Amino acid sequence: MQFTSEQRLDDGVFEREFVLGEIPGVLWTPASASAATPVPLILLGHPPLGLRRMYPRLAGRARHAAADGFAAATIELPGSGDRPRWAAVEQARADLRRVMEAGEPVGDEIVGALILPLVEKAVPEWQATLDALLSLPEIGGPVGYSGGVISIGIRLAVVEPRISAAALFAGSLVPAAMFEEARRVTIPLYVLLQWDDEGNDRQAALDLFDAFGSEEKTLNANMGGHTGVPQSAGDAAAGFFTRHLRQSPDGPAARR
Amino acid sequence: MQFTSEQRLDDGVFEREFVLGEIPGVLWTPASASAATPVPLILLGHPPLGLRRMYPRLAGRARHAAADGFAAATIELPGSGDRPRWAAVEQARADLRRVMEAGEPVGDEIVGALILPLVEKAVPEWQATLDALLSLPEIGGPVGYSGGVISIGIRLAVVEPRISAAALFAGSLVPAAMFEEARRVTIPLYVLLQWDDEGNDRQAALDLFDAFGSEEKTLNANMGGHTGVPQSAGDAAAGFFTRHLRQSPDGPAARR
Repeated sequence: MQFTSEQRLDDGVFEREFVLGEIPGVLWTPASASAATPVPLILLGHPPLGLRRMYPRLAGRARHAAADGFAAATIELPGSGDRPRWAAVEQARADLRRVMEAGEPVGDEIVGALILPLVEKAVPEWQATLDALLSLPEIGGPVGYSGGVISIGIRLAVVEPRISAAALFAGSLVPAAMFEEARRVTIPLYVLLQWDDEGNDRQAALDLFDAFGSEEKTLNANMGGHTGVPQSAGDAAAGFFTRHLRQSPDGPAARR
Repeated sequence: MQFTSEQRLDDGVFEREFVLGEIPGVLWTPASASAATPVPLILLGHPPLGLRRMYPRLAGRARHAAADGFAAATIELPGSGDRPRWAAVEQARADLRRVMEAGEPVGDEIVGALILPLVEKAVPEWQATLDALLSLPEIGGPVGYSGGVISIGIRLAVVEPRISAAALFAGSLVPAAMFEEARRVTIPLYVLLQWDDEGNDRQAALDLFDAFGSEEKTLNANMGGHTGVPQSAGDAAAGFFTRHLRQSPDGPAARR
C-alpha cells in the first residue's frame, strides 16, 4: 500500500489516497487515531460508478464515521473509474440496460452475469486492502462493512472473519445464488431499504432480509426514493456501528 | 381531571395518578417542566392488559421520554384493569382465544369485533385526556402517540390534529377496515415490527406500513420475538420523537 497524496480536512480528518497494486483507494482517519490509540475501521462499499463520482457521498460518510471515532476506507471496484474496462461486466451492463429500457423483466441470468464476477473479484481485493489497513499502527479493530454492493457485503460477511458487523443498502440487484449465501451470514446486520425505490424489487429485499442467518438484524425502511435515504437512517446506521465496533474498557462494545 | 396520588421518582420524574371521569391514568413529567417552560407530550398506548400489569414497561418508557424532555401520559383502556368489564369485548376475546387454540385462521370478523369497539370508545377518551393534559400549564405541545393498540394509533392520527407524530408497534391484530383508514394518515410515523413474532402476521404488518399515506414513514424491524424489542429500537423511536416534537428556537423541530 502506497500513499499517493494526503490532506487534512477542515474538521481535522486526515484523508490519504493510496494505491494497492493497481487498486486506488482512500483512507480517512480521525484526528484522534494514533499508534497509542488505534481506532476501529469501517470499509465503505459503494455502487460501481467510479470513486471520483462517488467521492462526495463517500467523504460525507467517512467524516461521519470519523466523528464517531472510526477510520473509514474505500477502494475502486474492478472495471470502474480509472481501472481498466472489464469486457464481461461491460457486456452484462449493456444487456441489463437493454432489458430495462425495453421494460422486460430482469432475469437472474443477467443479474448473475453482472454481479457474480464483481463479487468474485472485489471480495479478495477488499481482503487484501484489509490486510494492508490493519497493518497501519493507527488502525485497530473491530472492522465493519457499510454500504453497497449488497452482494459484496454478503460474501465479505461470510468469508472474512475480521468483519464483525455490516450495514447494507438493500438497493442492488441480487442474484438468486446470494440468497443461499445470506443464510450463512451470522454477524449483526443493519439493512437500509428505500421503501418507494421504483428501481428496486422490494419483495426481493424483504426476502433477502428474511434469509440472513444473523440473530441480530435490523431492517430500517424509509421513503424518499432510491437516493433519498433520510439523514435519520444514516445516523441510525452510524449508531449501529457505535454499538458494535466501539471498544469499551468494561467489555467488548459500549452501549450508547 | 383529578390527581389522586403523586410521587417524585428517584430520577426526578414527577409521577401523578389521575382519574378523568371513570378513567384512571398516569402522568409523568420531567423535573424541568413548569408553566414557564412547558414540555411536549407523548401519549403512551398499550395493549388491553390493564394498567397495573403494564405499569413497569409504561413507567420505563415514560422515564425515557422524561429524560428526553417530554411529559408522558397513559390511560386505562375501556374494559381493562379496574374499569367495568365490557361484555361485547369479553365475548370477542373469548372467541379469538377459542379460534387460536383450535389453530384455525383468525377471520376479520372476529378481529373487527374485538378491535373496532375498542377504537370507537378509546379514541374519544384519549382526546378528552388530551384536552385535560394540555390545559395543565407545565404541558405544551407538540403531542406524539407511542405504542399499541396500533388501530387506536391509526384512528387518533386521522382524527386528532393535535397529534403530530406517532411511533406504532406493528404487533396487533388489525381489522381490514383500518387499512383504508391508514391511507388517510399523513403525520410522520415510526413503525416497530418484531420480524420473528410468531403471533403476528408479518405480511399484514408490511401491507399496513405500505398503506400509510405519510410522506415520512420508517419501518424498523428487529429480531427477538413478540416481547423482545431490542433497546436500540426503543432508542430509535425515542430519537424519532426528539426530531419531531422538540421545539427549537430556530424552527419547528430540532435535528439531533
